[in-house]
Amino acid sequence: MAPVPPPVWTPGGAGGHTAAVVRPVNGESVLSRVVRVLEAFDPEHRALRISEVARRAGLHVATASRMVDGLVEHGWLERDPDRRVRVGVRMWELATRSSPALGLREAARPVMEDLHAVVGQHTQLGVLQGEEVLFVERLSARGAVVNITRIAGRLPLYVSSSGLVLLAHAPAPLQERVLAGPLRAHAAETVTDPRRLRSLLAEVRRSGYALARGFIDGETAAVAAPVRDSTGAVAAALSVVVPNDGNAAAVVPAVRTAARSVSRAMGRVDGDPSLNE
Amino acid sequence: MAPVPPPVWTPGGAGGHTAAVVRPVNGESVLSRVVRVLEAFDPEHRALRISEVARRAGLHVATASRMVDGLVEHGWLERDPDRRVRVGVRMWELATRSSPALGLREAARPVMEDLHAVVGQHTQLGVLQGEEVLFVERLSARGAVVNITRIAGRLPLYVSSSGLVLLAHAPAPLQERVLAGPLRAHAAETVTDPRRLRSLLAEVRRSGYALARGFIDGETAAVAAPVRDSTGAVAAALSVVVPNDGNAAAVVPAVRTAARSVSRAMGRVDGDPSLNE
Repeated sequence: MAPVPPPVWTPGGAGGHTAAVVRPVNGESVLSRVVRVLEAFDPEHRALRISEVARRAGLHVATASRMVDGLVEHGWLERDPDRRVRVGVRMWELATRSSPALGLREAARPVMEDLHAVVGQHTQLGVLQGEEVLFVERLSARGAVVNITRIAGRLPLYVSSSGLVLLAHAPAPLQERVLAGPLRAHAAETVTDPRRLRSLLAEVRRSGYALARGFIDGETAAVAAPVRDSTGAVAAALSVVVPNDGNAAAVVPAVRTAARSVSRAMGRVDGDPSLNE
Repeated sequence: MAPVPPPVWTPGGAGGHTAAVVRPVNGESVLSRVVRVLEAFDPEHRALRISEVARRAGLHVATASRMVDGLVEHGWLERDPDRRVRVGVRMWELATRSSPALGLREAARPVMEDLHAVVGQHTQLGVLQGEEVLFVERLSARGAVVNITRIAGRLPLYVSSSGLVLLAHAPAPLQERVLAGPLRAHAAETVTDPRRLRSLLAEVRRSGYALARGFIDGETAAVAAPVRDSTGAVAAALSVVVPNDGNAAAVVPAVRTAARSVSRAMGRVDGDPSLNE
């Protein structure tokens, strides 16, 4: 199965392109343009010509060109020898060095390496972002089963084990929005019935883990468990992707143990009953 | 030894604060302000009050407040419950999913894991950024020697083994700028004499690796080797930090082998003589 494409910014019907051009040039609209220019880049569009930046950002070529020049000057974009433009290492550095995701990744990484060494399969860490799970870390195994996630990739909450854990512990309004659909089948076993999904979420809360067999792809299953921060809130989900051969449940204790270790590394107090979740 | 603090943006003497306020509000100056607001955050300042953002970015509080509101609206900054502001996961996602550093990290990671498993010490991947080495990946070992690098951290080129490899293969003007100094001693063995540094760089090019014993800290040594991209250019340096106990040279073959494997994963052709470097 092909990776789910990331959302692309598209100028909204009435307000899009025209509004960006005619709106007075004030701080807010320039800020929006900066964001739109940078959001034009994604894994399928890592290097763009100015005309492509303009089209994807909904800007005139002259405007896009001026914005790109400024961003190149600050090192946020870089120009290839063939004049195509890429996201600069400077932007990655700024975003990474201060990101809350970095603390989480650093706390999780040694435990993820241990889990990865033991189960020999893809091991990943996801956080809730909008109505999707965003994978902030992944250790992939050569020769392991197919896995469509990648670092900084996203999946809908209801199709992945990590997403189910995050959704099960999410605020009620978000759960209701997701349950209201649309719930699209990604594979034969994706749960697209809101009542079944609601009871699955209750089961995830009760058992302390999510097991998703063939939700994304008939060949794979995944197990996820919640990672809690020092306040007890679910901050992330730790998951392992394994072959869908009927033995997926065997990794549940390892994943739950590892998730508790990450919670502990994040300052979760030993012996707290909510660690049992 | 304390970590070297990252560079902080400071408003330039005459032109700083005043220029930012009086300059006409056009695309360029707003863009600069966006960059300055986001550059106000670093590992020691992950959460800032608006007044701190304003001070660190050299902006009036009202201006900083308006910029922060806009960036929060786009998810590039996030507000804590206590109203402090942080870099948002959205910015990390955008910077990471399209970054050239991600392709490099993905190519390097399996090999880094192997090297890390064998040597049991910090294993890291650095790229040239300005006149410093920027670490884009790091596998750290629990119980390994002290290591002051971190992901998205930087070090001067002449004090780290990775930096020496990158500097040895950098364009001549950059080498001359670094050799012109100042070259500051970080530890007893840091090479601060330009003539000695120049001959060390020649030796790094000749031998195909850099060995830095006690350059940063008397307790540690490091070995680095170049990673080349498909054009043969040095794209990164792969390094291992080990105890400075006289046995550091023993990891040279492992580091060189691993660096060649990463080069190969990045499309470097098998059997090319420059792989020997």
